[in-house]
Amino acid sequence: QNTITATLFPGDGIGPEIANSVKEVFRQAQVPIQWEEHYIGNTVDPRTGSFVTYESMESVRRNGIGLKGPMTTPIGKGHKSLNLALRKELGLYANVRPCLSIPGHKTRYDNVDLVTIRENTEGEYSGLEHQVVRGVVESLKIITRQASSRVAEYAFHYAEVHGRKRVSAIHKANIMKKTDGLFLQCCREVAENYPNIVYEEVIIDNCCMMLVKNPALFDVLVMPNLYGDIISDLCAGLIGGLGLTPSGNIGDNGLALMEAVHGTAPDIAGKNMANPTALLLSSVMMLKHLGLNDQAESIHKAILKTIEEGKYLTGDIGGSAGTKHTTDRSLLSWSYS
Amino acid sequence: QNTITATLFPGDGIGPEIANSVKEVFRQAQVPIQWEEHYIGNTVDPRTGSFVTYESMESVRRNGIGLKGPMTTPIGKGHKSLNLALRKELGLYANVRPCLSIPGHKTRYDNVDLVTIRENTEGEYSGLEHQVVRGVVESLKIITRQASSRVAEYAFHYAEVHGRKRVSAIHKANIMKKTDGLFLQCCREVAENYPNIVYEEVIIDNCCMMLVKNPALFDVLVMPNLYGDIISDLCAGLIGGLGLTPSGNIGDNGLALMEAVHGTAPDIAGKNMANPTALLLSSVMMLKHLGLNDQAESIHKAILKTIEEGKYLTGDIGGSAGTKHTTDRSLLSWSYS
Ligand SMILES: CC(C)[C@H](C(=O)O)[C@@H](O)C(=O)O
Ligand SMILES: CC(C)[C@H](C(=O)O)[C@@H](O)C(=O)O
Repeated sequence: QNTITATLFPGDGIGPEIANSVKEVFRQAQVPIQWEEHYIGNTVDPRTGSFVTYESMESVRRNGIGLKGPMTTPIGKGHKSLNLALRKELGLYANVRPCLSIPGHKTRYDNVDLVTIRENTEGEYSGLEHQVVRGVVESLKIITRQASSRVAEYAFHYAEVHGRKRVSAIHKANIMKKTDGLFLQCCREVAENYPNIVYEEVIIDNCCMMLVKNPALFDVLVMPNLYGDIISDLCAGLIGGLGLTPSGNIGDNGLALMEAVHGTAPDIAGKNMANPTALLLSSVMMLKHLGLNDQAESIHKAILKTIEEGKYLTGDIGGSAGTKHTTDRSLLSWSYS
Repeated sequence: QNTITATLFPGDGIGPEIANSVKEVFRQAQVPIQWEEHYIGNTVDPRTGSFVTYESMESVRRNGIGLKGPMTTPIGKGHKSLNLALRKELGLYANVRPCLSIPGHKTRYDNVDLVTIRENTEGEYSGLEHQVVRGVVESLKIITRQASSRVAEYAFHYAEVHGRKRVSAIHKANIMKKTDGLFLQCCREVAENYPNIVYEEVIIDNCCMMLVKNPALFDVLVMPNLYGDIISDLCAGLIGGLGLTPSGNIGDNGLALMEAVHGTAPDIAGKNMANPTALLLSSVMMLKHLGLNDQAESIHKAILKTIEEGKYLTGDIGGSAGTKHTTDRSLLSWSYS
């Protein structure tokens, strides 16, 4: 088996600790991956316009694959969010968040199995805002045919490859007839090419109500940027929160950057208290994306068993173990053959 | 006791049936209200630009108080949504949705007690959209100091009058720094005048996650238009859906139009199958707004008892009774003294 090089951004706060956990689990499972680690600078790189250096961007582009811990955007005027800078600069146009109940972690909802697919580059995230007159400000939401069609295409392709039955486009086209209307039109056009997948359109407010009443009504959801931001967090909440959900950002030619989307948790950083689950699940997504399905499966099982066993859990999910304990005593203890 | 005149829009679809239920309950409870009924025309009134006639608008303005069933906006180009037309023309700047668990109706969540207060006139609902070039469309979100301050003021005032402890402003100012930033700034300024009420700011995606995990973390939520649309439906879902939640639209000088926010349900319209609960709860809100607290209380109790008793429930909440049965045999059977 050839070794694959992947970029790793351990990130800030609890990032390095949970990244260590992933590195150790990968070693134990003999995953043929070699990491190229990159840290975010503390000055703006003029070539990228953000704290993400040009070399970091190049690393992801060259390797085509990366894993990212949480990052804090240094506070101050005009600094682009690091997360957004990466998504935008690398053309990571689709954000994919599978949301699957973890049997060992009880919530109000059982058997949740949803995937949110979010347009990741435009919409309400255009960054175009201005003051019209004092006390009156505007922001622009941009929807393009190009970005809408490619995320719709990704969603249907994803559904097909993963054996899913239904794609729901989430929108507010009853109010934003032109912008969300264009998004829907693109989804409909793509849906034509996937006759075996049920296509439906659901208004975002109604979608949220249905999700909290009965998440089983949905399967794959595709939507513009802000709705995806909102709905993916809602879905994460159904199964326990961002500490338990993976995320992937997908670009052209298979480019992919998986990330844990929880925060940097500065209050517990460096204290061996962080839960590595979200980054581990994201690394499983990464392995699947690379076609390393056996390793992906065995690591996924180890994560679920660790939580099911319940002996070495971090504080956020009801235990009192440290990051190292949950890693060494549980995650590394299962068989990876 | 003087008789109060209130405008009643029975609305479309199931509207007239559930409005009948309210009228009968009010008669039984000897509520000193006389209805001025208005129906929506089937041509656009040039004086209002919508199917809502000038006379209807004038009726609400004159009476200062109204109750509204669901309305369908006739499909076709350029017709303003009737709901939005009413909100906008009457300057109903705050949309208030108390979301209270109904003890007799079991959901995944117990003891939910939240109030969402939504800016009702601007934001993403500006209606300003255009195509920049083929395949590129924009919509404008407008946030003004005036509208933000007045809804913030309403929220804090509401919290104070109703003995509530906390107001959370919901936003995405980490992305929409200027628009949502202005909204937050207005909330902060108003918060200064209410030192006894805890003020906090919560990012919308995080808010949705927290709401599904633990709604008790919130009390009163105030937010721009679209976020309010989304979060109020999410909250309604927690306690069972739009069929069980009241809503009120508030304007200047005490002007108020309460409404059931569920749909017109054309499939069951005229079939004596509709659940009158949401319109009844909205009528209770209306009575409270008018200071008719005793009648409000006794009708509220009758609604809860009907659901708790469970003998005459409509199909949507697990029974098989008709609208008239639930009204005649249960709602009208309790004492209103
Ligand atoms: C951190 C923030 C900029 C980001 C977003 O809004 O997209 C986050 O909420 C997410 O969902 O990844
Ligand atoms: C019917 C629709 C225009 C309306 C809205 O978007 O405001 C509805 O969803 C509501 O919340 O009252």
